[in-house]
Amino acid sequence: MGENDDSEIIEHHVEEEMEKRANRSHTASSSFLESVTPSDREGHSGTQSSHRLLAYSDALISIIATVMILPVAHTKVEDNEELRQSVQVLLTTKIAVYLMTFLIVTVAWAAHIRLFQVIVRIDDCLALLNLACMMLITFLPYTFSLMATFPEHVLGILLFCGCVMVMGVIQSLIVLYAFSRPFLLNEQIQISENQAFYKQHILKVIMRVPIMCLFASIFSFIFFQLSYVLLAIVIFLPYISQGLKWCRNKAIGQVEETPDSMLFYTYLPNEPLTKERVEAFSDGVYAIVATLLILDICEDNVPDPAVVQKQFGGSLIAALQSYGPEYLAYFGSFATVGLLWFVHHSLFLHVTKTTRFMGLLNTLSLAFVGGLPLAYQLTHEFPRNSRNELEAIQISCVIIFFAGIFQLTIWVVALYNEQETLHPYVRYGGREHVFMLAKLALYPCVALGTFFLTCILSKFSASIFHLMEITVPFAFLVLRLLVRVGLALLRLIFCPDRSEPKTAIEQEEEEARVPFNPIVT
Amino acid sequence: MGENDDSEIIEHHVEEEMEKRANRSHTASSSFLESVTPSDREGHSGTQSSHRLLAYSDALISIIATVMILPVAHTKVEDNEELRQSVQVLLTTKIAVYLMTFLIVTVAWAAHIRLFQVIVRIDDCLALLNLACMMLITFLPYTFSLMATFPEHVLGILLFCGCVMVMGVIQSLIVLYAFSRPFLLNEQIQISENQAFYKQHILKVIMRVPIMCLFASIFSFIFFQLSYVLLAIVIFLPYISQGLKWCRNKAIGQVEETPDSMLFYTYLPNEPLTKERVEAFSDGVYAIVATLLILDICEDNVPDPAVVQKQFGGSLIAALQSYGPEYLAYFGSFATVGLLWFVHHSLFLHVTKTTRFMGLLNTLSLAFVGGLPLAYQLTHEFPRNSRNELEAIQISCVIIFFAGIFQLTIWVVALYNEQETLHPYVRYGGREHVFMLAKLALYPCVALGTFFLTCILSKFSASIFHLMEITVPFAFLVLRLLVRVGLALLRLIFCPDRSEPKTAIEQEEEEARVPFNPIVT
Repeated sequence: MGENDDSEIIEHHVEEEMEKRANRSHTASSSFLESVTPSDREGHSGTQSSHRLLAYSDALISIIATVMILPVAHTKVEDNEELRQSVQVLLTTKIAVYLMTFLIVTVAWAAHIRLFQVIVRIDDCLALLNLACMMLITFLPYTFSLMATFPEHVLGILLFCGCVMVMGVIQSLIVLYAFSRPFLLNEQIQISENQAFYKQHILKVIMRVPIMCLFASIFSFIFFQLSYVLLAIVIFLPYISQGLKWCRNKAIGQVEETPDSMLFYTYLPNEPLTKERVEAFSDGVYAIVATLLILDICEDNVPDPAVVQKQFGGSLIAALQSYGPEYLAYFGSFATVGLLWFVHHSLFLHVTKTTRFMGLLNTLSLAFVGGLPLAYQLTHEFPRNSRNELEAIQISCVIIFFAGIFQLTIWVVALYNEQETLHPYVRYGGREHVFMLAKLALYPCVALGTFFLTCILSKFSASIFHLMEITVPFAFLVLRLLVRVGLALLRLIFCPDRSEPKTAIEQEEEEARVPFNPIVT
Repeated sequence: MGENDDSEIIEHHVEEEMEKRANRSHTASSSFLESVTPSDREGHSGTQSSHRLLAYSDALISIIATVMILPVAHTKVEDNEELRQSVQVLLTTKIAVYLMTFLIVTVAWAAHIRLFQVIVRIDDCLALLNLACMMLITFLPYTFSLMATFPEHVLGILLFCGCVMVMGVIQSLIVLYAFSRPFLLNEQIQISENQAFYKQHILKVIMRVPIMCLFASIFSFIFFQLSYVLLAIVIFLPYISQGLKWCRNKAIGQVEETPDSMLFYTYLPNEPLTKERVEAFSDGVYAIVATLLILDICEDNVPDPAVVQKQFGGSLIAALQSYGPEYLAYFGSFATVGLLWFVHHSLFLHVTKTTRFMGLLNTLSLAFVGGLPLAYQLTHEFPRNSRNELEAIQISCVIIFFAGIFQLTIWVVALYNEQETLHPYVRYGGREHVFMLAKLALYPCVALGTFFLTCILSKFSASIFHLMEITVPFAFLVLRLLVRVGLALLRLIFCPDRSEPKTAIEQEEEEARVPFNPIVT
């Protein structure tokens, strides 16, 4: 199994090399081509690789998932005690809409991944059907806004259910179309004997959600609370059915009944999710979140020339000084989001297979990342040393902590099945294991430390927070050095007499000088 | 040369297959690995593929490039004649800011591509430096807003020049760092003897812009108009120097003096641009533009419960009916942007090499795409059959026309050098040549037709426009059929007696049934 993983990573590197040397490596490629089985090369006129369609879909879905934080951010928080109550209700509603949208959209995204793990090639017709599906997904946040603002009105539910039902129909059309042209399908299904069984199983899974929505929309006329319950069940359906199955298996001691051949649409926690798509979706979310604040700054923080003339005596610098906190919030949130992306990037560089459970943890981490710019904006909106400022800073710390801790959890979960999911370097005892741990633990630790420091030294909370913002990027720059020093110190303290660990370091350093993939040579 | 191209495409397909079959194709991959030269596999501990860093940068840059259309869209257009004048001035300023930002950001993006064509692997330090660079790029639109609002004030220029200078320093640092660790570089430079020459040349090109900006910022204190001229020169510098060189060569009849070995930073129109990055950037722009309107809809078009109770007697549907045009604008613009993406996707599927000139045309097309949601929003903002509505519809047609025509131009330019840049299928006489032409010409033709129809039948302009919106997606669905019918008709009219063309069709149809890459077998 270990050998298996190594070759996967090498292949990954080889692919890059191929790309670059496409003009030159004729002999190399042709020798490779000869070893590819004929079924791989088969394709039909007009079929295309689905890569770019999926990248575009990921971009669309990630934008939609994060964009609902904007209405939250644009809610003006009043210092007035009376108004505060009503604003807080409004804010809670909007945050609920954001989280619901994020959840639903990521569920739709997971369904999209699953579908295009089965269908690996597309043609024009599928591309157009997929675009129609995307249009409906982008409309979902609006239906949520309606539901949140008018919870007792039937229209929001009906619109949502309508969208989901049409999406279900389009997805079924896609499946039917693809199965009628088997060369579009995954090779494994293409050569499988029970293609009809696959088709039925997939259609059954896909149609489950629209049918539940149909019931929900019917019940909404009779007893609308029930509709909400039904919709909640729809979202958690896979988890519920999986949990029930697990309980039953534990109780009866029965072995799982799914046929071994069924690799798709299993909803098991270790069902694979295409790694490229998890990365693309995460990139999209990080990119949008990083730029959310500049959007507001460009629109709101350019002073009116007349105002500058009247209030500031024509001094633009004086006028802009009042916006100082906004700039600080922008740079702070950009740096934090950028560095969280950096940690995510480092982690997924060493992940070789993404499972459903890891995808779920990643989604949770991203949901917190989405809240970051809002939290940063809040930290600079209140007067210095007010209770609100302290609260805002502590909320920021909590959000950073959770965003980081879920990233760390992804790695911990991956470690439980490290043979399959991780590159040897970051497994237990691997060369980069401790370094990876340090990278992933840096933000949660710093956030936790800042949180407790601000609790104790509440007067200096803003200064502590800004100091943290400035220090962390540099900490990342010298992290490798810090880890080395820390390890050496630990060894010095706990086992100063043993010489074995020292050789380990030397060996490590020596290894660092040899090529990256010595396994091949 | 033709054989060369074929193998490139096949390699491309093989890469996908490899990705999917990573778990299984051991023999295949190892046989390929043996044929890779050792220098390709070399790498060092901590180095990483730059793929995901570049994708993230592309996402950030594409968001920043398009986001400045939002302030334009949020300018309220008044029907009041007096106010209109001042609003139009404001609108023109904002559109200028949008176009300037788009231009500058794409120039920065092109510089980024050039840099990472030389540096093909990254490590943590480069990733962090790149993030710092990205932060500065995202700040550029704000400096433009300041410049546009306070054209005679020195601060905007200074801020812009400061950002560009710091970016220049960071890029130089990246180059110096990468050249001190040659395993990060492009293989071609890695094995080259005159590495020092490359380094100097690249640094010289990179530092040219910050130095010009330094002069611009100094002149801004003396005579600020000159600074703007200098900044304009900075943007068009490569084109100017290229043009001058061309003129000189034509006048003296001299052959080009650049050494053949110099493949990077040449600024020749056929300098290659990484195709993946052009696609990623375009995807980002299309995705943002497609979702821009839903952003506004979610924020502004959820009615206040109190208003619904008071004005509409609690009828939510009646309240939402007033927003009808907004929904229509959303679906219309999403569909148009989605289909333009679809055309772009179809085109780049058959492009094998992207040149600088094609990149420029693509940027122009994208700049028009960015204006689409705004135009669509305008079409529904005015009362029915007003002069404004007609104008708005015609502006929409013009924007669609230009967005489409630039896509068509990319293909035409590619055809001039089809051996290098195009897949055989879409070259002159290729199997998909006419179909590709039809795909690319559909939007420009429809837009032009709608434009002239609305000129003649100005009373029905809105109906014509909506009919166009609804028809086009279906036209794309049946386009292949339409092209076949059209071709058959043409043959029937112009050469009804010759039997040769008919066999060509039959042959074509037969070919359609054989595998996609028959060249391999």
